Amino acid sequence: MAAEPKKIIIDTDPGIDDAMAIFLALRSPEVEVIGLTTIYGNVYTTLATRNALHLLEIAGRTDIPVAEGSHVTITQGTKLRIADFVHGADGLGNQNFPPPKGNPIEQSAVDFLIEQANLYRGKVTVVALGPLTNIALAIQQDPAFVKNIGQIVLLGGAFAVNGNVNPAAEANIFGDPDAADVVFTSGADIVAVGINVTHQVVMTDADREKLALSNGKFAQYLCKILDVYFSYHHEAYCTRGVYLHDPTALLVAVNPSLFTYTEGVVRVQTSGITRGLTLLYNKQKRFEEITEWSDKPTVKVAVTVDAPTVVKLLMDRLMNS
Amino acid sequence: MAAEPKKIIIDTDPGIDDAMAIFLALRSPEVEVIGLTTIYGNVYTTLATRNALHLLEIAGRTDIPVAEGSHVTITQGTKLRIADFVHGADGLGNQNFPPPKGNPIEQSAVDFLIEQANLYRGKVTVVALGPLTNIALAIQQDPAFVKNIGQIVLLGGAFAVNGNVNPAAEANIFGDPDAADVVFTSGADIVAVGINVTHQVVMTDADREKLALSNGKFAQYLCKILDVYFSYHHEAYCTRGVYLHDPTALLVAVNPSLFTYTEGVVRVQTSGITRGLTLLYNKQKRFEEITEWSDKPTVKVAVTVDAPTVVKLLMDRLMNS
Repeated sequence: MAAEPKKIIIDTDPGIDDAMAIFLALRSPEVEVIGLTTIYGNVYTTLATRNALHLLEIAGRTDIPVAEGSHVTITQGTKLRIADFVHGADGLGNQNFPPPKGNPIEQSAVDFLIEQANLYRGKVTVVALGPLTNIALAIQQDPAFVKNIGQIVLLGGAFAVNGNVNPAAEANIFGDPDAADVVFTSGADIVAVGINVTHQVVMTDADREKLALSNGKFAQYLCKILDVYFSYHHEAYCTRGVYLHDPTALLVAVNPSLFTYTEGVVRVQTSGITRGLTLLYNKQKRFEEITEWSDKPTVKVAVTVDAPTVVKLLMDRLMNS
Repeated sequence: MAAEPKKIIIDTDPGIDDAMAIFLALRSPEVEVIGLTTIYGNVYTTLATRNALHLLEIAGRTDIPVAEGSHVTITQGTKLRIADFVHGADGLGNQNFPPPKGNPIEQSAVDFLIEQANLYRGKVTVVALGPLTNIALAIQQDPAFVKNIGQIVLLGGAFAVNGNVNPAAEANIFGDPDAADVVFTSGADIVAVGINVTHQVVMTDADREKLALSNGKFAQYLCKILDVYFSYHHEAYCTRGVYLHDPTALLVAVNPSLFTYTEGVVRVQTSGITRGLTLLYNKQKRFEEITEWSDKPTVKVAVTVDAPTVVKLLMDRLMNS
């Protein structure tokens, strides 16, 4: 007897690799997508909502609700950093898709997250693929959220490696460092997947050609939008492949055994030149003084990934549709 | 024909491993110690000066001048963090040695550094074993210092690993983060050795027993003061050995080929929870925006060390006296 699929909410800022992750989730029998919540990051929140609705229409899954998330960081004063140079001005490879027919639900992302976590206590996994504003607001708004939510799988951080916004910070954490610190220290069951892991998971030119030859609806769609993403990676990293950030993080919810993890306290620097830096305390030293990491709840942080299996799983599921 | 020995000034806060480094330098024909400058860190500056004079008297090298350094950080308002719990209240293993007979020179450490760098242009290496206050002040006081000084070898930083003061910061950088950032971005020829490297170089209990059996004057002296240092390491790291931070850094000046290096821009976070964190930009990504690492001078950062050879060299030279 197959286990009941895990209920997941994808908090997303689509985004080319967000599109991959959403399609992958919809093709993964291990999970049931019970909603998308949107956030700024790769695009502004309004466009993220539009793209989320659009992607669900492409997938023929307009039954899944989309709840619009925050338009601003939790401290509200911060200028947003939008990565349109990575994903295109429309967030989906500059393809000028027609506007979606559907609309987001009335409920805000934060209210939706709180409600679903309460409705299915301990059963809902949030897969957070953008800045952590919505999740932090849910934590701040409902003291029961950290207990009600089953798990938070988040794509974020650069653990012991350089960031991708600047040498210190990874984009999702940089997008709202204060929110990220709230989430990491909340006591929720958290698994963080940083770019130290996702940079090991690469879709090559050859993979892309394979996608192009597939008749799968998702494969065909993705091939249209991937150009911009490949060009960006070539310029920024001098590679001919692209990093599979979001689908990799999604697979932590689908099959956690594809990764290994360490556990420790993670804090986020919220000011200065390393604003957005994530720092994991590995507990190898007993410090003389009380530190900002002392007596804080621990989280799990992905350390290694079975990259070939991740890529194969993604390819198979995207082509088989 | 042997090359002329390299002139070095050791900027030091003795400190048990400082004592080892000073003795090692005095037994190394590759270098000529032309002065010691003192700084707070393991002890307050006044005691560092007293200990520097004492160690030179033990060595019979009272011909070497000691110049007293800064008593405060470059921003002056910072409370000093003194690591007496690592080295003992006297900095030398709580042995209550009699006060030294000699005195520091009239010149301050900063003036001495500037003068010697100007006197032997491009020929003097500073080996900085404590917080970088004196070096930063020399850089700020004399615009020619970064050109006049041959090289600055510094023990400092925790590159891509946890710190030893807290999860973010290594003690020497934490001691004066603003000074460290001045030094790292000064354009001087700099080699940084962080605890990611020095934690690989361990003096074991067996090494210590070997030292104790030696008739060497330095070996005998060090065996007296090592107890406190071993106890601290046992408590803080659950090990039965001690890290050879300062002698390892000293050996970069003596024999740089015992290490491998990378090169990049290093910046120091000067505020917030990761105050004192060192962050090296490895140049693997071209960032979209100008960052705080852009267009700054690069430094060399030690990556690997031939630890067995370092320990053997230290042991041989300390016992042979």
